[in-house]
Amino acid sequence: MKTLKIANIPGDGIGKEVVPAATDVLKAISDIHGGLKFEFTNFPWSCEYYLEHGEMMPEDGLERLKDFDSIFLGAVGNLKLVPDHISLWGLLIKIRREFEQVINIRPAKVLDGVRSPLLNPKDFDLIVVRENSEGEYSSVGGKIYQGEDEIAIQNAIFSRKGTERAMRFAFELAAKRRKRVTSATKSNGIYYSMPFWDNVFEDVSKDYPEISTDSQHIDALSAFFVTHPERFDVIVASNLFGDILTDLGAAIMGSVGIAPAANINVNGKYPSMFEPVHGSAPDIVGKGIANPIGQIWTAKMMLDHFGEEELGSTLLDVVESVTRDGFLTPDIGGKHTTKEVTDEIINRLKAVDKKGITSEG
Amino acid sequence: MKTLKIANIPGDGIGKEVVPAATDVLKAISDIHGGLKFEFTNFPWSCEYYLEHGEMMPEDGLERLKDFDSIFLGAVGNLKLVPDHISLWGLLIKIRREFEQVINIRPAKVLDGVRSPLLNPKDFDLIVVRENSEGEYSSVGGKIYQGEDEIAIQNAIFSRKGTERAMRFAFELAAKRRKRVTSATKSNGIYYSMPFWDNVFEDVSKDYPEISTDSQHIDALSAFFVTHPERFDVIVASNLFGDILTDLGAAIMGSVGIAPAANINVNGKYPSMFEPVHGSAPDIVGKGIANPIGQIWTAKMMLDHFGEEELGSTLLDVVESVTRDGFLTPDIGGKHTTKEVTDEIINRLKAVDKKGITSEG
Ligand SMILES: CC(C)[C@H](C(=O)O)[C@@H](O)C(=O)O
Ligand SMILES: CC(C)[C@H](C(=O)O)[C@@H](O)C(=O)O
Repeated sequence: MKTLKIANIPGDGIGKEVVPAATDVLKAISDIHGGLKFEFTNFPWSCEYYLEHGEMMPEDGLERLKDFDSIFLGAVGNLKLVPDHISLWGLLIKIRREFEQVINIRPAKVLDGVRSPLLNPKDFDLIVVRENSEGEYSSVGGKIYQGEDEIAIQNAIFSRKGTERAMRFAFELAAKRRKRVTSATKSNGIYYSMPFWDNVFEDVSKDYPEISTDSQHIDALSAFFVTHPERFDVIVASNLFGDILTDLGAAIMGSVGIAPAANINVNGKYPSMFEPVHGSAPDIVGKGIANPIGQIWTAKMMLDHFGEEELGSTLLDVVESVTRDGFLTPDIGGKHTTKEVTDEIINRLKAVDKKGITSEG
Repeated sequence: MKTLKIANIPGDGIGKEVVPAATDVLKAISDIHGGLKFEFTNFPWSCEYYLEHGEMMPEDGLERLKDFDSIFLGAVGNLKLVPDHISLWGLLIKIRREFEQVINIRPAKVLDGVRSPLLNPKDFDLIVVRENSEGEYSSVGGKIYQGEDEIAIQNAIFSRKGTERAMRFAFELAAKRRKRVTSATKSNGIYYSMPFWDNVFEDVSKDYPEISTDSQHIDALSAFFVTHPERFDVIVASNLFGDILTDLGAAIMGSVGIAPAANINVNGKYPSMFEPVHGSAPDIVGKGIANPIGQIWTAKMMLDHFGEEELGSTLLDVVESVTRDGFLTPDIGGKHTTKEVTDEIINRLKAVDKKGITSEG
């Protein structure tokens, strides 16, 4: 019997709706698959928590998370209560950094039954490997003067270690896929960091002669996500560029509500964190119509991470059978609720079980 | 008689094909409209020029450009000859900065007869106002250590003056349009510059109570360009975000080959520069199939800039009649050449003339 201790942080907005939904799915999987147990612990850290406590998580928050097998997070941010940079740097980005979750993996492909906004999406199936700990997301910088002379300086910091690590991860992943890595750069406009990024990419690529490579400036690459997403296999990108590309990836999939993600701690010192691409979506909070698929697909990535790839595939197959049969929330053109979609997934998981889910674990 | 002195810099790749095409169109306009004359002077500054002279333009290059009424540029960059950051900072970005072309205006809308890659592009008609002189495009920064400890630091520099200037430009533009300005931010991830950007936006917006505003993080905004481009009127963005959004704008229009742009010197001290969104497109150089419309539409923006808005509209109407009737280069699904499309535009301009082009100039 394998027991996995999961720290649930629903966070803000629809995070509070989709984390419970995906948790129910994981519980159903555990009911079906006797050998696997989840123990969920809930942490109410959020913007509301901030209003009460003056911080996004308690001072010993990281200490309390550190022995979990993984963190399952919904969404963070509620501009009406807390400025975004305070809420994000106090919780989501803090965990990513302190727990050295240096890689963010974000796949994009169209699910059957989900209409892409593209006229001809072909069959794209790509994964963005996003550097998740440094780069443009940095709290180094500051301001000088007030009033009309005010100047803000923002440092982006790229280490060879961090850059290389993300790139190697991308190459290893591509080796198991279609053997192609695209580097997202902007070395024509950004003077120091991006030519450096290009150099590291060139160096790393020499160790992987069997992988074909190309580099694209982020502006052109963003456009290619719209015009030719099928061209890409694995894309390696800086923190900011990865952020932009993965929202684009979600958009061409049909909805940011279905896109999954995993923040991976690669040195095994701390838990990894599983968190979908979407945000807290204040416009639809409380209506019961948030798409649970992003969070559920994210749960699949968590299963994969625990070595339960077969269970993971089964789960994604079931999700896709549900979208194929038209159980869709409004963001992807349907009329179903969060609960209806979730229940359908759970029922079908139970039906699959009759035919037998096996586990590698 | 108004005589306008234009400095043509075809630059690299297809720049050398589309600048002559658009120049022919401007000559035809001048033939038709007796009151307007263009004097073109050609500058061969490019990556090939660099190979010969060790610099992208001569030392007195700016001096030689400064008394022209405007600069008409094709594209810069040829990675096979010169690293991008050298070629761009030595020519395109240098001119933008030294001539204080602090605003880059880039409209996006679908032309009749050009198929958007979107399933349902609706009738979007937006303009991105890009801050064009500072922000993430900065040559401040550097590197430390070699080998595995190497670190690159890149500074982004945002002044209140520069930020406010771009924003005011956007508000003034929106006042003449649908009265809506969207700010592209990323204040949830980028700690100093973007919260600063948000503050300036809030301050400036107070002076324009009749304009409605919203702020979107660049990741979500990029996704909205794919899912709901019709929501936007004027978007104000930093140098990098504007760069990304305008390639996306070009993509949803159907091709980066048709998207126009203008680098505006707002204080009247130096010439403005007109340069389409697309790059030098090494893959199609020499085939005679480059789409001339981006450069020709850019010429329309130059006419507008000279107060010849009526001529500008006539030109765009003619271009759209040509795409509507299926004279399309391969990038937008046709089989026509650069020359065929250009000739058709020129012939139709002549036909319009029989009905009379009038000028405000
Ligand atoms: C070539 C490059 C430096 C340039 C930019 O990023 O500004 C181009 O992409 C553009 O948009 O004009
Ligand atoms: C909320 C925000 C800070 C975050 C990011 O930019 O990393 C989000 O957009 C994401 O992609 O996970």
